[in-house]
Amino acid sequence: MEKLKDTIKKIQSPDPGLLEKAQTKLDDLTKPQGSLGRLEELAKQIVSITGDINPKIDKKAVLVMAGDHGVVKDGVSAYPQEVTMQMVLNFLGGGAAINVLARHIGAEVQVVDMGVAAEFDPDPKLLNKKIASGTNNMTEEPAMSEAQAVRALEAGIEVAGTMIDSGYNIIATGDMGIGNTTPSSAITSVICNTKVEEVTGFGTGIDQEGLKKKIEAIKKAVLVNKPDPKNGIDVLSKIGGFEIGGIAGVILGCAANRIPVVIDGFISSAGALIAHAIEPKCAHYMIPSHCSVEKGHSIALAHLGLTPLFDFDMRLGEGTGAAIGISITEAAVKILNEMATFSSAGVSTKN
Amino acid sequence: MEKLKDTIKKIQSPDPGLLEKAQTKLDDLTKPQGSLGRLEELAKQIVSITGDINPKIDKKAVLVMAGDHGVVKDGVSAYPQEVTMQMVLNFLGGGAAINVLARHIGAEVQVVDMGVAAEFDPDPKLLNKKIASGTNNMTEEPAMSEAQAVRALEAGIEVAGTMIDSGYNIIATGDMGIGNTTPSSAITSVICNTKVEEVTGFGTGIDQEGLKKKIEAIKKAVLVNKPDPKNGIDVLSKIGGFEIGGIAGVILGCAANRIPVVIDGFISSAGALIAHAIEPKCAHYMIPSHCSVEKGHSIALAHLGLTPLFDFDMRLGEGTGAAIGISITEAAVKILNEMATFSSAGVSTKN
Repeated sequence: MEKLKDTIKKIQSPDPGLLEKAQTKLDDLTKPQGSLGRLEELAKQIVSITGDINPKIDKKAVLVMAGDHGVVKDGVSAYPQEVTMQMVLNFLGGGAAINVLARHIGAEVQVVDMGVAAEFDPDPKLLNKKIASGTNNMTEEPAMSEAQAVRALEAGIEVAGTMIDSGYNIIATGDMGIGNTTPSSAITSVICNTKVEEVTGFGTGIDQEGLKKKIEAIKKAVLVNKPDPKNGIDVLSKIGGFEIGGIAGVILGCAANRIPVVIDGFISSAGALIAHAIEPKCAHYMIPSHCSVEKGHSIALAHLGLTPLFDFDMRLGEGTGAAIGISITEAAVKILNEMATFSSAGVSTKN
Repeated sequence: MEKLKDTIKKIQSPDPGLLEKAQTKLDDLTKPQGSLGRLEELAKQIVSITGDINPKIDKKAVLVMAGDHGVVKDGVSAYPQEVTMQMVLNFLGGGAAINVLARHIGAEVQVVDMGVAAEFDPDPKLLNKKIASGTNNMTEEPAMSEAQAVRALEAGIEVAGTMIDSGYNIIATGDMGIGNTTPSSAITSVICNTKVEEVTGFGTGIDQEGLKKKIEAIKKAVLVNKPDPKNGIDVLSKIGGFEIGGIAGVILGCAANRIPVVIDGFISSAGALIAHAIEPKCAHYMIPSHCSVEKGHSIALAHLGLTPLFDFDMRLGEGTGAAIGISITEAAVKILNEMATFSSAGVSTKN
């Protein structure tokens, strides 16, 4: 609990004066003022996050947090649980979508076993932070103990800290866990105070019958566990998941270290809701990426005050949307750092 | 006129069977079917454009077509005409936004003088295709002769052809030309049969008074010249611009060579409308990128049947939105080519 408390204490609101300084710098570049729209907004946000008017984004990572879920026993997913383990091996082999997209944008993929229901041979590319072999079935009991929830958060903080110590200056969240849209919908429903039906979608591809089961499971989990919406640790322990706790920890760790953290899709936003419930100031450090097909995602993003950068009808997770978000953020920072000024390029200003 | 006719003749509709083949390939990759949304759609489009189930995107270029406009005499722009020339020099010096974004995505910037009202010293990075030193004032007479319009189109076809012969396998359109949102609004109004007020925006940043003048100028130009909406060459010559003709030519040239062409903002979409009026089949080869702040842009894109990939509130031109579009398209093609299959990765399929 000490590490978590220390981390929360370190999270500060960025200095708004930095936004103005960054705007002044942007307005001197050879383009009509404001004409690069959200790229300029992103550049300003990175300045305010890092406190650096010439911020660097040159060492990039996607953290893929993996975990399994006891609630799959209730038939909430279209895929068997073993796929979590198989996909972890696919990440390590470099064949998954996130590997392809991370290579495309020049980022590392770091896979973290937060609680997969399988044992892995040691692999330098796989970090072992296993809390347990999958969560309990949250329709019957809390998904995990409070102590486990804290351990999951602290594991995320540790992983982020290690990456930041190695020089990574932007981190994207990613997830893998068969069944994990179910706890994500539960978390979104509770924290955003929204009906379960409005935040529950088809996940990896269940049918109408499956959706009905999923909604019932979530309602039962909330009824049985009565999570306190104002208490992020309570929500995480009762209706969360180990990888969701890990994501929340990564976000808190990035915020404490003034490093931008790019939020992927629905599962990442559930982690972000937990982090935000624990320390609302961490939202300043979040960079949105895409808006997912999962209907709860836009509700979670709105709660966090984030406007997604793009909507590609994606619903894969793994950090795939966030990887593209990293590339766009990097572009924005390069605009700020590399463009000529009106005077240096000898370009006339507005009439 | 021969080159234009030959090019038009070469443009074919892609084989729809290729879309199905690409879908089958995508559905065997380790992700729920369709879960990468528009990235999958883009990958399929590139297969259908190139006719290659393993298409390559590895040599990328942004063509920045520059030209001046006689209509600036009517006070339609916030910047003086000399900025066109100054920005061309900025492109050659590597300090403009498009240079930064092209470097970010690993693309070349090729600048083409289609009709700037200034003379440049020879520079290996600047292609001289100057038709004239700026267009005539379209509020008084046709912006250019029909012969000049054909020469502008053929210059664009030539530039695209040279790039494609050098191995470039994706090309983005870009523009520079003080005053060029005015002819772009005129073209969009005429070809899309929409009121001038509905397709005319603030360009680089005029005020309400400037907007009034701009709308009046466009109405006068259309009234004086009576362009035939069904005749792309007629519209281009009467109310177009040299760089807009060049962009239209680049699009026709890419389509004839089965090379994807990424469309930038409002001025590029005006070029696309001209190309589409000349040969509607060229739209199959267009990849949309962003939706611009300029209000006519979404109307032009809808006419072309294109749904933009993202909306970053941008309004700079130069190919800045299209550069990001290239990177997203490249990501989509890598997904198709580099991901593991369910069988190769040993991942279980859906229950």
